[in-house]
Amino acid sequence: MSGEGFLEMFHRLTSVGWDENNGVNRLALNEYDIRARRNLEDEMKRVGAEVSYDDAGLIFGSLGSGENTAIGSHMDSVPNGGRFDGFYGVMSAMQILKDGMASGKKITAIDFTNEEGARFQPSLLGSGMSTGVFTREFTYSRTDSNGVTFGDALEKSGYMGSIENRVKKQDISRYLELHIEQGPVLELEGYQIGIPRGIVTMAVDSVVFTGESNQAGPTPMNVRKDALVAASRFNTAVRDLAAKSGKELVMTVGKLNNYPNAYNVIPGRVELNLDTRSPEKSIAEEYSSMAGEIARKISVEEGVSLKYERSWITETTIFDEDMKKEIEKSCRDLNLKYKYLYSWPGHDAQYMNRVVPTAMIFIPSHNGRSHTREEYSSDQDLLNGYSVLKKTVEKL
Amino acid sequence: MSGEGFLEMFHRLTSVGWDENNGVNRLALNEYDIRARRNLEDEMKRVGAEVSYDDAGLIFGSLGSGENTAIGSHMDSVPNGGRFDGFYGVMSAMQILKDGMASGKKITAIDFTNEEGARFQPSLLGSGMSTGVFTREFTYSRTDSNGVTFGDALEKSGYMGSIENRVKKQDISRYLELHIEQGPVLELEGYQIGIPRGIVTMAVDSVVFTGESNQAGPTPMNVRKDALVAASRFNTAVRDLAAKSGKELVMTVGKLNNYPNAYNVIPGRVELNLDTRSPEKSIAEEYSSMAGEIARKISVEEGVSLKYERSWITETTIFDEDMKKEIEKSCRDLNLKYKYLYSWPGHDAQYMNRVVPTAMIFIPSHNGRSHTREEYSSDQDLLNGYSVLKKTVEKL
Repeated sequence: MSGEGFLEMFHRLTSVGWDENNGVNRLALNEYDIRARRNLEDEMKRVGAEVSYDDAGLIFGSLGSGENTAIGSHMDSVPNGGRFDGFYGVMSAMQILKDGMASGKKITAIDFTNEEGARFQPSLLGSGMSTGVFTREFTYSRTDSNGVTFGDALEKSGYMGSIENRVKKQDISRYLELHIEQGPVLELEGYQIGIPRGIVTMAVDSVVFTGESNQAGPTPMNVRKDALVAASRFNTAVRDLAAKSGKELVMTVGKLNNYPNAYNVIPGRVELNLDTRSPEKSIAEEYSSMAGEIARKISVEEGVSLKYERSWITETTIFDEDMKKEIEKSCRDLNLKYKYLYSWPGHDAQYMNRVVPTAMIFIPSHNGRSHTREEYSSDQDLLNGYSVLKKTVEKL
Repeated sequence: MSGEGFLEMFHRLTSVGWDENNGVNRLALNEYDIRARRNLEDEMKRVGAEVSYDDAGLIFGSLGSGENTAIGSHMDSVPNGGRFDGFYGVMSAMQILKDGMASGKKITAIDFTNEEGARFQPSLLGSGMSTGVFTREFTYSRTDSNGVTFGDALEKSGYMGSIENRVKKQDISRYLELHIEQGPVLELEGYQIGIPRGIVTMAVDSVVFTGESNQAGPTPMNVRKDALVAASRFNTAVRDLAAKSGKELVMTVGKLNNYPNAYNVIPGRVELNLDTRSPEKSIAEEYSSMAGEIARKISVEEGVSLKYERSWITETTIFDEDMKKEIEKSCRDLNLKYKYLYSWPGHDAQYMNRVVPTAMIFIPSHNGRSHTREEYSSDQDLLNGYSVLKKTVEKL
């Protein structure tokens, strides 16, 4: 019987590092992540899978022989995160092993290390190293907020494996990842399954307005050089730009630091980041340069100086067309309402797609909440997603 | 000869706690403030003044007998502050003692404790306690960022004096305070002396916008509840409201904290303070309630919730009319160009005015800079201010 015990296993194992008030605090390679990893290994060994690690700390559980379909996600969380993000995909991969799908073919379930980037920046660190995007030197030298390097944390965790086990060196033929949408679209539009065409382009700009910090009282309005007023106008203008663009585009100022940040002092400096995403790289580029122009205009009008720099930009990821078609067929066979869409956050699938044919399957996120303890997907949605994954693995 | 040695004494003594890169760090009752206090006492004793403290740590240096004119200011600074703010007034009071002005009358030079409120909140703590605005219990329990109470810091400093020495219990007939303007008006308009009519009303509102924190990528623009966009619109609108009011009015959002403040997360909560000042209390009240209405309108439009509270509001202080006239006469006698204006920051004179006739004298601040190491007033302006103070003391 398909998915037997899946919900029980998912809910039991994702409780590691969870509490009702604070959500999940299963940061990469912390005590909770390590406990979750031990539990996963136990499950893998119980079905007779061969367990190995690579030198980025990825866990592989392989069963069967023949063409090797890899399935996975991550078990690490952000601080005060949700129970579903990543964990759902790893448990689904585990369930595929349990359900005896590795008959006549090989299945490898993967837990990726430090997907979130909450403990070690950047995100997708484990998949990045295992697929050759990041060097070992770069990866191991990433440092958490307590000054601990990724290399030291990995060594201490007991999950330091061999370079020979890296994704790139294994016989993997394709990669599948089941994940929650982390957005509201499927629920709002009444779909049960999302099929990501790929992952959008993400551009992050670093913006600094420098004005003149003075006592709030004695400086008349018309001679002020208020960096926070400039930043406020910028944020409002950029939001309006994106909202009225008519494009598939989001623009967000999520981080803003104001200096000196005293109630009676005119702000002298504001540092902020602008995050621009679109399925089309050209649109992301066009709109983030329009934002740059807006910032320049505002800085002149407000008499403040401006530093505007591109921090980084990704390429749009396009997943494997054949695999997407197979997923679509599975949805039809199962009579589930599906929608093609883009993944707006990044996923390990992004780097896996560089080395093997890759695709993802999404299920609805209630109210679109994610990275918070309110994150929720119903048991029915969890099972629907698993059924699509299983049917797709059968056919591949 | 008037003011002999004044500049030398001022520049020598204000160097305590100064360095070229970081400005003055003479926070109330820290090691630099205590050194500055010892130096002041030495100067006072050198001219034969009787030195005493009260139980708020104020230093009094009295000379002569007869009607008692008190003159003073403060020697504490903000972090990375300027050399002139407060210190200039204390040195001028000291110079009045040195210049033999206490002949046929009594002069009391005062150093007020913790004027800035940078170490212990609120500001004007020493003058507030000494004039009976704050209770001893309240004052002593104020705590700095390291958890040290004002009471303990005062005890440890050696400046704990007697309740019998409080301003209210002394024979003080009037109070004069010489200070830098801390704003650009006198310099911009070409005046040498400012005569404050009084101190403006200051209202501080506490504003919290609560939206919904979500991953920046997957949440479309039209379903967001972005607390920082709401705060940005508010800040821009309030600045425009004040700038276009045609009133004597300033409105400032100086402090803004954004949560969770991650580049890829839509801001879920913003806390900010709005500082509104005007010489007319009714205008400050009218415009801060207009700001409240603007916040409410924006919160509805942005789908975020709003908490809008008045933190505190002061009364407009009006200084003694006769004393202001005397200062005006002194300016005329000295052929100095003067302007009546309001003090937009608070001063110890605000609380002194509640117990004795009080007035202030301002000199220009170069570029209006204050509370920063760039704070500067020329030697000529320092001497001009001192001359006006001295002539006024002579006539009173």
